[in-house]
Amino acid sequence: MVGVVSDDVFDDPSGTREEILAATYQALVEHGYADLTIERIGDELEKSQSLIYHHYDGKDDLVLSCLEFMLERFEATMAEDELDDPRDRLERVVDWMLAPELDSEHRQFFATTLELRARANYDSAYRDHFTRSDRTFDRRIATIVREGIEQGEFRECDPEAVASTLMTLLTGALFRRSSVDDTEWLEGVREEVDAYLEQCVYATDE
Amino acid sequence: MVGVVSDDVFDDPSGTREEILAATYQALVEHGYADLTIERIGDELEKSQSLIYHHYDGKDDLVLSCLEFMLERFEATMAEDELDDPRDRLERVVDWMLAPELDSEHRQFFATTLELRARANYDSAYRDHFTRSDRTFDRRIATIVREGIEQGEFRECDPEAVASTLMTLLTGALFRRSSVDDTEWLEGVREEVDAYLEQCVYATDE
Repeated sequence: MVGVVSDDVFDDPSGTREEILAATYQALVEHGYADLTIERIGDELEKSQSLIYHHYDGKDDLVLSCLEFMLERFEATMAEDELDDPRDRLERVVDWMLAPELDSEHRQFFATTLELRARANYDSAYRDHFTRSDRTFDRRIATIVREGIEQGEFRECDPEAVASTLMTLLTGALFRRSSVDDTEWLEGVREEVDAYLEQCVYATDE
Repeated sequence: MVGVVSDDVFDDPSGTREEILAATYQALVEHGYADLTIERIGDELEKSQSLIYHHYDGKDDLVLSCLEFMLERFEATMAEDELDDPRDRLERVVDWMLAPELDSEHRQFFATTLELRARANYDSAYRDHFTRSDRTFDRRIATIVREGIEQGEFRECDPEAVASTLMTLLTGALFRRSSVDDTEWLEGVREEVDAYLEQCVYATDE
């Protein structure tokens, strides 16, 4: 999960903050938010637990910083993709989020962000984060759609509307799959997303 | 939320179980799952709190029974709808779940079920419930689509795939709206759902 991130995101020459956030992420994935404690984060950290208190004001401050860190990482990953064909890029996002099988790392990553998203209903700091992160993702997808239209590969559709629809559907798919035992329904969803993209987004050959 | 429910669902002549579940629902909506206690459920109950222990084995037993109760109520509400035109029925579900404004009762109802759904990742009893409840909703929507095809109002689409796609999108919309501050994106989602239904589900006039 944790890797190279631009310097302006975590201006921390020693790397301690980044190590603490990586430990927070590991502890979150292992125990879930409800059972997360500073001690459990400390268990994932090679350095002294006391460093956590030096850098962060408790559990929610840490978790929110961790979410921010994950969002920045995610954006950086998507930014690497810029040179590709718009249709391929859109398909890659759909493939990834509707994959019939998820490896355990991705499964845990999604489950963790969903649990934290559920907190947003009760806590405005989480709400602020997810408002911002949804905007970031929608905007990123809308940019792909806009490029597709400009390049004549996509129809004259509404890039923002298409982006919000795909992100809403993909969020729903992740949330459903993390809370049910069967995944057969995913295949049907994939077929309908393909039909929607063909009919409403991709340009026809004529 | 709580009203008449068929006798086979809660075979309890005294109505005590139903009152306890109504109190559980109220306490859930008010405090959320994380801060729910038997005492808080007791505060919502006119009868003695000790009755709760007589009928239920603790918080999760109560919450799961409450979810089951909500699902049965929901099914009963949808069953009342059977006589209508398939297209009107489908539109009504979409209207309801993508409404730009939700009254506070519905907002709280959705937020509560979403918080409980997030628990399904960690607890198989919740997982069993949501597996069953998703199947129930998908099947209900698929029945509407099948009737639309039979009546010549809908195209020869795949009823199960359409149903799973709509329920996944609507679940995603409810989850997103409960975790962010803005709802402008909902309008775009609604436009694209309409475009999808027109292009892939509803029959054309020709």
